[in-house]
Amino acid sequence: MAKSKDNEKPDKKIEDLGNSIVRDIKNGSNPKFTTLARTRSNVIFDQKNGYLKLGGTKEERSFVNVSQSKRFMQTMAVAAKCHKFVKEGLHTTIRGLYYQLKFSLGEDVDENVFSEQSESNPLIEDIEVALSLKREDLNLNANRKGVLAGNMRIIDTFGNEKIEIDCAKQGRSGWAIPSDVDNDIEFVDIKAKYVIVVEKDALWQRLNEDLFWKKENAILITPQGQAARGTRRIIRKLADAGLPIYVFTDSDAWGWYIYWTIKTGSINLAYIGGDVATPEARFLGVTMSDLDKYEFLNKLTIKASEVDLKRAQEMLNYEWIKRHKEWEVELERMIKSKIKLEQDALQGPRLTFVGDYVREKIKNKEYLP
Amino acid sequence: MAKSKDNEKPDKKIEDLGNSIVRDIKNGSNPKFTTLARTRSNVIFDQKNGYLKLGGTKEERSFVNVSQSKRFMQTMAVAAKCHKFVKEGLHTTIRGLYYQLKFSLGEDVDENVFSEQSESNPLIEDIEVALSLKREDLNLNANRKGVLAGNMRIIDTFGNEKIEIDCAKQGRSGWAIPSDVDNDIEFVDIKAKYVIVVEKDALWQRLNEDLFWKKENAILITPQGQAARGTRRIIRKLADAGLPIYVFTDSDAWGWYIYWTIKTGSINLAYIGGDVATPEARFLGVTMSDLDKYEFLNKLTIKASEVDLKRAQEMLNYEWIKRHKEWEVELERMIKSKIKLEQDALQGPRLTFVGDYVREKIKNKEYLP
Repeated sequence: MAKSKDNEKPDKKIEDLGNSIVRDIKNGSNPKFTTLARTRSNVIFDQKNGYLKLGGTKEERSFVNVSQSKRFMQTMAVAAKCHKFVKEGLHTTIRGLYYQLKFSLGEDVDENVFSEQSESNPLIEDIEVALSLKREDLNLNANRKGVLAGNMRIIDTFGNEKIEIDCAKQGRSGWAIPSDVDNDIEFVDIKAKYVIVVEKDALWQRLNEDLFWKKENAILITPQGQAARGTRRIIRKLADAGLPIYVFTDSDAWGWYIYWTIKTGSINLAYIGGDVATPEARFLGVTMSDLDKYEFLNKLTIKASEVDLKRAQEMLNYEWIKRHKEWEVELERMIKSKIKLEQDALQGPRLTFVGDYVREKIKNKEYLP
Repeated sequence: MAKSKDNEKPDKKIEDLGNSIVRDIKNGSNPKFTTLARTRSNVIFDQKNGYLKLGGTKEERSFVNVSQSKRFMQTMAVAAKCHKFVKEGLHTTIRGLYYQLKFSLGEDVDENVFSEQSESNPLIEDIEVALSLKREDLNLNANRKGVLAGNMRIIDTFGNEKIEIDCAKQGRSGWAIPSDVDNDIEFVDIKAKYVIVVEKDALWQRLNEDLFWKKENAILITPQGQAARGTRRIIRKLADAGLPIYVFTDSDAWGWYIYWTIKTGSINLAYIGGDVATPEARFLGVTMSDLDKYEFLNKLTIKASEVDLKRAQEMLNYEWIKRHKEWEVELERMIKSKIKLEQDALQGPRLTFVGDYVREKIKNKEYLP
């Protein structure tokens, strides 16, 4: 099977795949399709680059193989649908794709080729990996979540118009980060000097109301909890544009997890690791050490949960953590004191203190790796 | 206690409350604070207007009463904080308020006046009810969710600027509906003729990409699942502006619940019932009856869950349902066939079919009450 060229368009890549299979059939050889294994054991942490990615274990789907031929045929059906979506210039989701497969395969084939969406989902990943594409390139939107404000503009080619969105003119709402931030969309006039990623929308709104992004010339993003693909991707792109990325979360298991996912990617998305990980990201807080610096926070702590303590203990075993003393200190302090700290607590003395905290941390370079 | 006038500003209303209490103290009478009971038994369905609201049962908090004095004092502390937020012109959340209470009461009072947020939350509702205000009027933002596109503009007075947002120029993203759609924000040039509320963001994106709102001159909203306060409120406001509201969900327990909540409000928010309910809303689909009209849907049904079936059975006992035969037919059909239908399935034949479906339903007035 011919390997796709990375700079080819998605529809062309799918055509190349199809042509190579037709060629195999004509030549009397067994059509094959090769992808990388997305098993847990093939997910590795790339020490040098600092993110999760797939290892080299390959998987082959062959047509002339009783146990694989159905899956092979299904994969081709998924690829054909995606090709159609790209050609039509229309988007849907992996659920919409599943319904199309159910609808149209039922027409030609006297068998229910897909009976559950769990059958088509992994095949989409197979194709993403095999063709070095993201599902967004195949016109499949993922769940979106996340909001942005700051000194930059967006040119969104949408409905045959070039729509200009000024992210400094989005008021209380901010710009809703879409699923696809790569195709038919451009980020221009990025005048901001750095990016703050705020775990909670509530705190984003607090900083937005204070016009923090304007006063500090920053870009203010909230993933609204765990970051969706689109939000991870835009953070990566802003880092590529040379902006430092600072992540601001609670000091607890969930907050750390959000940070790690932004920084190193995640097991599920290891197959597109480098595209959705930002190893350059730094952790701004809140930290357990803030309790020493900001006296008032001591009366605003809350009890750490079992999950928090268990997670902290697990993280202490990470090779990476062992090499970063600052993180060891943080984790050990939670385990010992059994308390945690929310970013919301910074509003205790006055609502505008949140911005002062962020400003001071950045000014003094008080962040963790 | 003097009853607040409905047209008074929030800060003035809180001052009136405070003054009446000071007056009581000076007169040697027992300071009291009256609110409506928000117990389940005091939530009633207003048959005439078609929404859930509080009944007339009152609750009195009195200062000179051992069992109530702490709560009385806490209520005053909450009111004082909200007054401050309104005066400062700054917003936070009920969590931010809680942290402020913990911070500042600890300063003057040698006791932990609030030890859990569950203590301050109901007091906020007490004040909302007693003063005929919504928490958004007290500068307390609620969780936000939901997106809008269509022919209307927004004037958002934000950061001392009047920011204009054209909801027809938001590209793939749409305008993110904020928590507060009442204060310092205006909706102007509403040129659209009706509103479509689409349960799932994925389907909203589908219709948005087809420029459905432009072609049909509609306003396209997704609550992204269950509607948040801000989204319920903007639907109410658009209905007040004279626009018909059509709700488009899955045909299952969750979809029906989303519709009912938009239409009649919810038990939790019965205390602001009329402000967040839109009894004029109509149910566009998908319906079980669609299976007769759209043959292809029959191969795209899925198995109804136990929850779906139980909920359908419960709904059959509602007085309202008994008066609306169309709904009885829907519910009984699911119970009998044990299948359900998702709005996503409309993408089966082609992605653009979703818009055709909505268009035809509206044109033929095929919707349920």
